[in-house]
Amino acid sequence: MAVTIKDVAKQAGVSPATVSRVIADNPRISSKTKVKVREVMEGLGYYPNFQARNLVAKKSQTLGVVMENSATLAFQNPFFPEVLRGISTRAHGSQYGLYLSTGATQEEIYSEVVEMAQGRRVDGIILLYSKIGDPVMEYLSKSGLPFSVVGRPFKDPCSISYVDNDNINNTKETVEYLIGLGHRHIAFVGGAVDFVVSLDRLEGYKQTLAQHGIPFDEAYTANQELMGGNEREAIRRLMALEVPPTAIVTHDDMVAYEVIGYLEDLKIQVPEDVSIIGFNNHAISRHLKPPLSTVDISIYDLGLHAAELVLEKITDESVPPKQVIVSSRLIERGSCRRL
Amino acid sequence: MAVTIKDVAKQAGVSPATVSRVIADNPRISSKTKVKVREVMEGLGYYPNFQARNLVAKKSQTLGVVMENSATLAFQNPFFPEVLRGISTRAHGSQYGLYLSTGATQEEIYSEVVEMAQGRRVDGIILLYSKIGDPVMEYLSKSGLPFSVVGRPFKDPCSISYVDNDNINNTKETVEYLIGLGHRHIAFVGGAVDFVVSLDRLEGYKQTLAQHGIPFDEAYTANQELMGGNEREAIRRLMALEVPPTAIVTHDDMVAYEVIGYLEDLKIQVPEDVSIIGFNNHAISRHLKPPLSTVDISIYDLGLHAAELVLEKITDESVPPKQVIVSSRLIERGSCRRL
Repeated sequence: MAVTIKDVAKQAGVSPATVSRVIADNPRISSKTKVKVREVMEGLGYYPNFQARNLVAKKSQTLGVVMENSATLAFQNPFFPEVLRGISTRAHGSQYGLYLSTGATQEEIYSEVVEMAQGRRVDGIILLYSKIGDPVMEYLSKSGLPFSVVGRPFKDPCSISYVDNDNINNTKETVEYLIGLGHRHIAFVGGAVDFVVSLDRLEGYKQTLAQHGIPFDEAYTANQELMGGNEREAIRRLMALEVPPTAIVTHDDMVAYEVIGYLEDLKIQVPEDVSIIGFNNHAISRHLKPPLSTVDISIYDLGLHAAELVLEKITDESVPPKQVIVSSRLIERGSCRRL
Repeated sequence: MAVTIKDVAKQAGVSPATVSRVIADNPRISSKTKVKVREVMEGLGYYPNFQARNLVAKKSQTLGVVMENSATLAFQNPFFPEVLRGISTRAHGSQYGLYLSTGATQEEIYSEVVEMAQGRRVDGIILLYSKIGDPVMEYLSKSGLPFSVVGRPFKDPCSISYVDNDNINNTKETVEYLIGLGHRHIAFVGGAVDFVVSLDRLEGYKQTLAQHGIPFDEAYTANQELMGGNEREAIRRLMALEVPPTAIVTHDDMVAYEVIGYLEDLKIQVPEDVSIIGFNNHAISRHLKPPLSTVDISIYDLGLHAAELVLEKITDESVPPKQVIVSSRLIERGSCRRL
């Protein structure tokens, strides 16, 4: 039924071994023969066995994409499909496919990455997160497999290819903006504390307060992962402070809208009573009420660059590690009010 | 540097050929030998070359996931990550990885699918959409490769394994609900007309009107893809009808919120002036304003079942095609008003 290598050889008037060498793009075969054999392959509808071909070429034409271990959260945040869209576009440009990790725990993800690397299932890996003390990143650093990271590595960032926003400065800009509107009591609702992006954002928040002579008070911060835990209570506590915040910086638009919901349950209106600002500028945010002021972090570009970095490394192992900073941009909409 | 098959053979006291057979899970090797060799492999940290192993086992332990060709839209709709989450969970349960198509045009996707199938890059494919006259589905039907579809195939649905909602009946329930609230002029904003789900939803809409003696009028429907085209104008035209609709059924929550935005620009309030209902119950919809009445179509379960169907077929080719209907459920929130 299926067309075989012998059929191709016969019609092209060459030996089956020559066809194999054309498939493996062996430099000892002339361009003329390659063109002819490929024409016959196409004419007959012959597709070389992918695994056999890759075994010869030592390539899989596949990039591994590794998500953080909290699978539900990772999938539900609009960050994931948008960064994947950027990766997919760039990968497709080099005829690369994507292989997704499916592990739900850190241990499972670790084994998957080891299997991807040692089993040569993929030619390179994109890590979609940067966590403190992450064994996956440590393993990749030692493995010799090309990889890139979305987010700044905590340890030896200059030895690793990564793409990130300047999260200290974009948070500074955000807090400056609120201070400019007359706010002095500004709360900060960050992500999980073991993510480097959370550290950077908190640092940007602290630096801005210090520059404006506003004392940092931990009671004005919340750092647990807000999508799953007891976030309603955290917001209630925040608003029950002796001097409650007049503005809240959140680490993600989705979190901002959840917070707005909790505030409304407490009969607190946004932006009338409290200003709120998001991060990530998800596609839907401009359509919602209130339209959210937020920071566009160019998620699609983060994905594009992450794919570019790892593909570069695959093409040329000797390329030194690169760091790409993607710009972000404050977007003023209707969720912040001048005091 | 890397541990080789010879190292394993030496330490296990067997021949390298025996180690290869253990890797390929050859039934001629005793369980005792298999256990011993695997222990040594684990002890030494040896991972068999994935492609070599699969070439022998004729398996890739990978499922292909194929998205519709409008890549931007496909990624940006929250349907995609949620169905992928269901697929990923089930695939992971059988130690399967996922391989994502990255093609942006129908031609590119077609070539990718052919390469996946003929190159044995994947053991089976999940098609995330069902379109009329889709060459990809036609190819898969003939290829012999196990596959499943999210959505009812237009042609010979009983010959193909698929998972779907009952889209005629869930739309009927939705329109019934609005009629029960006193609405008679109900508009219908559907998806792209070449998708089977769009046909089914329109059919449910028409059937309900007929049952209630309300004449069907095409002017009350919009069928273009709303996320990209001239949707603002379509909504303006709808509301400029001599008797404008008092309620609008939309095919997706994201579309519903876009429509609400356009209505507001026309100074038309939801639900005061117009009731609106969504589909798909995206995670964010309950937090938004107005909280959207919608239909929960169990997207995660659609993904789970799609993976289950294709894995079943991979394990046992002789399994007859199966059709799974996943339940959906109307969720009343604040976007519809009794007349």
